[in-house]
Amino acid sequence: MDRRRCIIGQSGGPTVAINATLAGVIKAARQNGFDAIYGMVNGIQGFLENQMIDLIPLCTEEKMEQLIHTPAMYLGSCRFKIADNDVETKNKIFENLERIHITDVFYIGGNDSMDTVQKLSAHAAVTGSPIRFIGIPKTIDNDLEHAYYIPGYPSACQYVATTMLEIAHDAAIYPGHSVTIVEIMGRDAGWLAASASLVNQDGDQMVDLIYLPEVSFHMEDFISRVKTLLLEKQHIIVAVSEGIRDNAGQYIASPTGYVKDAFGNCSRSGCAAQLKQRLETAVNCKIRSIELNVLQRNAGHLANEYDLQNAVRIGETAVQYAMELETGIFVGSRYDAEYGLLFTKENISEVSNKVRAFPGEWIDRDQCQIKNDYIDYVRVLLAEDGMIHLPEYLRRES
Amino acid sequence: MDRRRCIIGQSGGPTVAINATLAGVIKAARQNGFDAIYGMVNGIQGFLENQMIDLIPLCTEEKMEQLIHTPAMYLGSCRFKIADNDVETKNKIFENLERIHITDVFYIGGNDSMDTVQKLSAHAAVTGSPIRFIGIPKTIDNDLEHAYYIPGYPSACQYVATTMLEIAHDAAIYPGHSVTIVEIMGRDAGWLAASASLVNQDGDQMVDLIYLPEVSFHMEDFISRVKTLLLEKQHIIVAVSEGIRDNAGQYIASPTGYVKDAFGNCSRSGCAAQLKQRLETAVNCKIRSIELNVLQRNAGHLANEYDLQNAVRIGETAVQYAMELETGIFVGSRYDAEYGLLFTKENISEVSNKVRAFPGEWIDRDQCQIKNDYIDYVRVLLAEDGMIHLPEYLRRES
Repeated sequence: MDRRRCIIGQSGGPTVAINATLAGVIKAARQNGFDAIYGMVNGIQGFLENQMIDLIPLCTEEKMEQLIHTPAMYLGSCRFKIADNDVETKNKIFENLERIHITDVFYIGGNDSMDTVQKLSAHAAVTGSPIRFIGIPKTIDNDLEHAYYIPGYPSACQYVATTMLEIAHDAAIYPGHSVTIVEIMGRDAGWLAASASLVNQDGDQMVDLIYLPEVSFHMEDFISRVKTLLLEKQHIIVAVSEGIRDNAGQYIASPTGYVKDAFGNCSRSGCAAQLKQRLETAVNCKIRSIELNVLQRNAGHLANEYDLQNAVRIGETAVQYAMELETGIFVGSRYDAEYGLLFTKENISEVSNKVRAFPGEWIDRDQCQIKNDYIDYVRVLLAEDGMIHLPEYLRRES
Repeated sequence: MDRRRCIIGQSGGPTVAINATLAGVIKAARQNGFDAIYGMVNGIQGFLENQMIDLIPLCTEEKMEQLIHTPAMYLGSCRFKIADNDVETKNKIFENLERIHITDVFYIGGNDSMDTVQKLSAHAAVTGSPIRFIGIPKTIDNDLEHAYYIPGYPSACQYVATTMLEIAHDAAIYPGHSVTIVEIMGRDAGWLAASASLVNQDGDQMVDLIYLPEVSFHMEDFISRVKTLLLEKQHIIVAVSEGIRDNAGQYIASPTGYVKDAFGNCSRSGCAAQLKQRLETAVNCKIRSIELNVLQRNAGHLANEYDLQNAVRIGETAVQYAMELETGIFVGSRYDAEYGLLFTKENISEVSNKVRAFPGEWIDRDQCQIKNDYIDYVRVLLAEDGMIHLPEYLRRES
């Protein structure tokens, strides 16, 4: 066998499972006899300045276990976009790779990071470089194409569902009426906000209204639904995706919470605060807005073990594809009723810069709820036994 | 023995341990042969309208275990203040108690709830009623007098410390500089914000600046400290108590986050957002503000087991005092080097409506840090072995 030397990068926003994928790549590269295993510090951006570390010292059982259970990104991240015509940057990256005799590059990230993998593998094809590039998905947004799901998403769901349950218990203790609006991450797709539907107790749905970016948001309709609900029950819980937009495609979040990154993506906050403000002029009760903020993507203490195991497996699968001398690919996934979650080989150009929306047919628009198809979908992600395990808190029968 | 019949109420803000205390009272009352064990629904406010339930059906091992591990308040809460001269309300409460032949009232709450216990026990003394009243403390604020600590506080510390650690990991992944400002509950006392000092890794303090209400806040000094820190390190983490005030005693939080309850207490939010806004005009880097919001007081999934055990014990101790025919008392606590945490009998008038500030001598004003005396203090609250257990996440050596 030729001598194999790899480098691994992490890019985009953090999740609790991306280090588990890193551990999977390291383990499998070691087992497959790679001579060198490097890590890019701060992804392709740091690597352009030759920032990298040797990952071989991590190859002890103890360190690997610890890495698997560490949230965020051990190697650091970046949000760096290579322009199509920026040959200089591409050449610089290849020079840096060649200097340390890299044969395989593994890049773990979301939609935008896959754009980097696509551009570099295309550049290799044009220039005749033998360096191979494999993309491995991570994003709590769960919005990549050709994937049944993306590692890190199940843990984020577990965080959102557990936290929503505790928020509902918190709200329920006070006499009088209240509305609690919880803002959940999801720039363009409502996958994570949909997990609020997992919160039920003794058969009762605990979250009353769920709003995703896939359905345009009507403020007056929202206010009238809350008013109607307040006639029936004391405490209303609303889950809302940060990316909800009105009919005209305008974000509901206040424009002050607007930040553009290098990919032109807007990260925004404040739509729950906005709904609270509007609601205060319409109903006369206690209204609270809560942003789950970065906690939802990085709560290592609530990481789902099955998610972490699968995140390791997807990293190992990437190395397996590298051993088959693949390049310009992405590790997708599908669900098989007999075999469970399976990882699949996908062409990188089929996934980069694309967003997989939450399926419209799983949204109950009449009730602002999520249909049970979603529960069936998510069940297989959260545990080997296909059960959703949330704390079982005691409720007073009233 | 006379026939004993008790009723238990919960009042004030939720914690993860207040139901464990309820369970302790129920268990001990059952063991001591109480004929009836009732619960007030929504505290004294609901009880005025005869809202109560029979708690005997909870007396199974399974339900007790579940109750101990359920956050918030099983019985519901209220924020209801009995006016000094409101004899009508007091008489109504006694009528309702006499109708169901109550001999002992247990009221679990914070400073304000102890005011209720004091007024009702004083009223009993004046009217010659034999009904006894015992106050049992709960508050994540940890700010009651004559107590070494208050149940629920250790779990809230565990939540804050774990979350701060994860927020620090989240912030650390990006290249460039950043400041993350985290707002922690604590209206008048900085006990909970101080727990941000528990977050260190490999000997490094992870939270750079900690601001408590006990020290007046100077905006210019804050900005200049952040500027200096940014010369030394990339990512700055700031913990700030919601109740910080300037030299003139004015809250830093924006006035829009201002709500008054029946006790005249102001619950406020938004001081982290305020600091972010001011900092944005002074330093040129990414600045994020995060409110831990209700999650910090009600995160049952991160409840500290030792805290819950002690919360059960304090409930049992209250019943023991009732068996000694005490009234107008409060269950305090002290720490004994040999015997550990001990519960003590305190006169209710010594605790109601008083706030125990975070000790000034534990604050390092020069560094905006908390001294190790606090670590020694909190150590015995979080585990029987006196160790603080936080997740051990892997950090890259750079």
